Amino acid sequence: MLQISKRGQLMPPSPIRKLVPYAEAAKKKGVKVYHLNIGQPDIETPKMILDAVRNSDFKVLEYSHSAGNETYRRKLVKYYASVGINVDHNNIIITTGGSEAILFGFMTCMDAGDEVIIPEPFYANYNGFAVAADVKVVPVTSHIDNGFALPPVAEIEKKITPRTKAIVICNPNNPTGYLYSAAEMEQLKQVVLKHDLYLFSDEAYREFCYDGTHLSAMQLDGLDEHVVIMDTISKRYSACGGRIGAFVTKNKTVLDAAMKFAQARLSPPSFAQIAGEAAIDLPPDYFNTTKAEYKSRRDLIVKRLNAMDGVFCPNPGGAFYAMAKLPIDDADTFCQWLLESFEHNKQTVMLAPATGFYGTPGLGKQEVRLAYVLNLTAIDAAMDCLEAALKQYPGRN
Amino acid sequence: MLQISKRGQLMPPSPIRKLVPYAEAAKKKGVKVYHLNIGQPDIETPKMILDAVRNSDFKVLEYSHSAGNETYRRKLVKYYASVGINVDHNNIIITTGGSEAILFGFMTCMDAGDEVIIPEPFYANYNGFAVAADVKVVPVTSHIDNGFALPPVAEIEKKITPRTKAIVICNPNNPTGYLYSAAEMEQLKQVVLKHDLYLFSDEAYREFCYDGTHLSAMQLDGLDEHVVIMDTISKRYSACGGRIGAFVTKNKTVLDAAMKFAQARLSPPSFAQIAGEAAIDLPPDYFNTTKAEYKSRRDLIVKRLNAMDGVFCPNPGGAFYAMAKLPIDDADTFCQWLLESFEHNKQTVMLAPATGFYGTPGLGKQEVRLAYVLNLTAIDAAMDCLEAALKQYPGRN
Repeated sequence: MLQISKRGQLMPPSPIRKLVPYAEAAKKKGVKVYHLNIGQPDIETPKMILDAVRNSDFKVLEYSHSAGNETYRRKLVKYYASVGINVDHNNIIITTGGSEAILFGFMTCMDAGDEVIIPEPFYANYNGFAVAADVKVVPVTSHIDNGFALPPVAEIEKKITPRTKAIVICNPNNPTGYLYSAAEMEQLKQVVLKHDLYLFSDEAYREFCYDGTHLSAMQLDGLDEHVVIMDTISKRYSACGGRIGAFVTKNKTVLDAAMKFAQARLSPPSFAQIAGEAAIDLPPDYFNTTKAEYKSRRDLIVKRLNAMDGVFCPNPGGAFYAMAKLPIDDADTFCQWLLESFEHNKQTVMLAPATGFYGTPGLGKQEVRLAYVLNLTAIDAAMDCLEAALKQYPGRN
Repeated sequence: MLQISKRGQLMPPSPIRKLVPYAEAAKKKGVKVYHLNIGQPDIETPKMILDAVRNSDFKVLEYSHSAGNETYRRKLVKYYASVGINVDHNNIIITTGGSEAILFGFMTCMDAGDEVIIPEPFYANYNGFAVAADVKVVPVTSHIDNGFALPPVAEIEKKITPRTKAIVICNPNNPTGYLYSAAEMEQLKQVVLKHDLYLFSDEAYREFCYDGTHLSAMQLDGLDEHVVIMDTISKRYSACGGRIGAFVTKNKTVLDAAMKFAQARLSPPSFAQIAGEAAIDLPPDYFNTTKAEYKSRRDLIVKRLNAMDGVFCPNPGGAFYAMAKLPIDDADTFCQWLLESFEHNKQTVMLAPATGFYGTPGLGKQEVRLAYVLNLTAIDAAMDCLEAALKQYPGRN
């Protein structure tokens, strides 16, 4: 009998999207659902970059260079310099979203059975790319009590085996919003150097830091051979649908190998490369405005959450996610109940149960991730729903 | 010391793109290079589909559904019906190019160490996706003497082992242009049923058949569980840079597993989905015009090739490639020589050595692939170059 592959069976479904059928059912009943479950911002994509695509004038929608258009890569060098990252256009492969940059990193640097250490909770799709690349994700637990700071180096080192090839960080972090300090980045550097590991740095939310400064892994001295940045324009410019990212490294052997994977898939999307290139000419205040908007949302959601009886939400330093500990029995049950059995003035809220972000089974059962991607009014209304829900939920602790 | 993965080392560089530096050097010397090496058509992308993107009116470039926009998938059902393929929108996942459809197929249906049989010469990037998925490509040789017809079933069956999970066909074929007959498709069906294999059918060039009719693998009765179509709009509408394809199967288990891979990478590109959707409303004569153009190019290039002393080019029934046997010692050396050491009235031609399309080492050394993606005048000029080159080439047999 025909069977699918083991990896096809092992591949985890998206924990963020698995509650979608319940949300659709709620909407069919006439209930308004506030989507705080997914990192799809309501911030408008800068008109200037959409217009660059709309005003494009070509006759043939051609393949681009497999590494992406050289004009775009050269402009990206300027962008990276503006955030303190010094690279050459030959250090950059334009990818189909940050997703493909992650896949290229895993495929290029690790073989089947190799291990990659990731502080948990972590971006759930790392699991998917690990299954695709047949590598093992080894989680090191970070904790809500200290806001999900980097686990102690000793904890990380305990997980290192001869098969360990890399550490993945996401900074600022999805799902926790944690922004690594310079001291923590220095600790990571020492571990990486001592054990000769790759450091994959997912910096999708680089621009959105509210307290403290972002230090890129590529700003760490002496790690040129170790660091691969996995980047994307999705969040930076509210351009998730463009599917444009970047794989950036100064390690020429790694880049050359990744380039062969890039050639196999021919080229990244041409339309959105136009948008990405145009984005580099956005006025400098673009990020100030966007950042101020996200900061006010963060301030509101954190304040509202911590004002609820039995709820704890550490203040996230960056990205647009907050993790909250709720007085509930089970986050998966609760999030489904919110959609299936609850409404507050014909409204409810969709959250992401944190269980999907932990690699260790059993963790995160009282935690949820909230993406503050909606405007202040919507966040306020969503928090009204959550507050009312926690009073009614039968599984309250 | 940091090392890249074995698969990163094994990953083949693109045989089509490896001569690019020599082409660039020739251009710098002022030599015009006719690019018959790569399947990038000069046919204009229909303005109507580019305009659909240019006239699009949205504020946020959002993620689409991981399977692609439902409106697009529903329209694709109409398109497939128009070419005799009856599917439901739930049988379709929109992919990032045909490339991703191939990767999803390999990942979903095969595990590390599994084997996939492919008639050679074959589309070289199957090798890349096989390395990514850690599966073994087992070639079955087809021959230029009979125009690269399907190898005899006995030859295929000789290659089947307990690890064999699938057969890949590309129909009409890249690189040979061969169009499988109904009888050959029936033979494939029997092999697939007898040995319970998947049949991956790459139908990127479905519209471009000049002699005979295209029979889709999905039109074979009784193979609903076995067939996965790997499709793309790249060639159909000269929209290679869009990076829009489709993974189509009636096998629900396979589709559900592929959907998890699709979720991990979030969504296919949004801009080009608009183009793809618009394309379905192109007037029916669109393909007639395009096909007539390609046919006249095919007729010219085949005539010119066979008129050259010592050259044999079977007449390809479809796609826009021709394979020719040349009176030379080594196709790789010859193709490089064409760029490096030859010119004819300040012009030369870039071809793809066939060696890169064979899985069996040593095959294809006297063959080249010519993509007739340029207009008649350019093809004529390119053939003038080739004719002159064959007279001067020091390694002529």
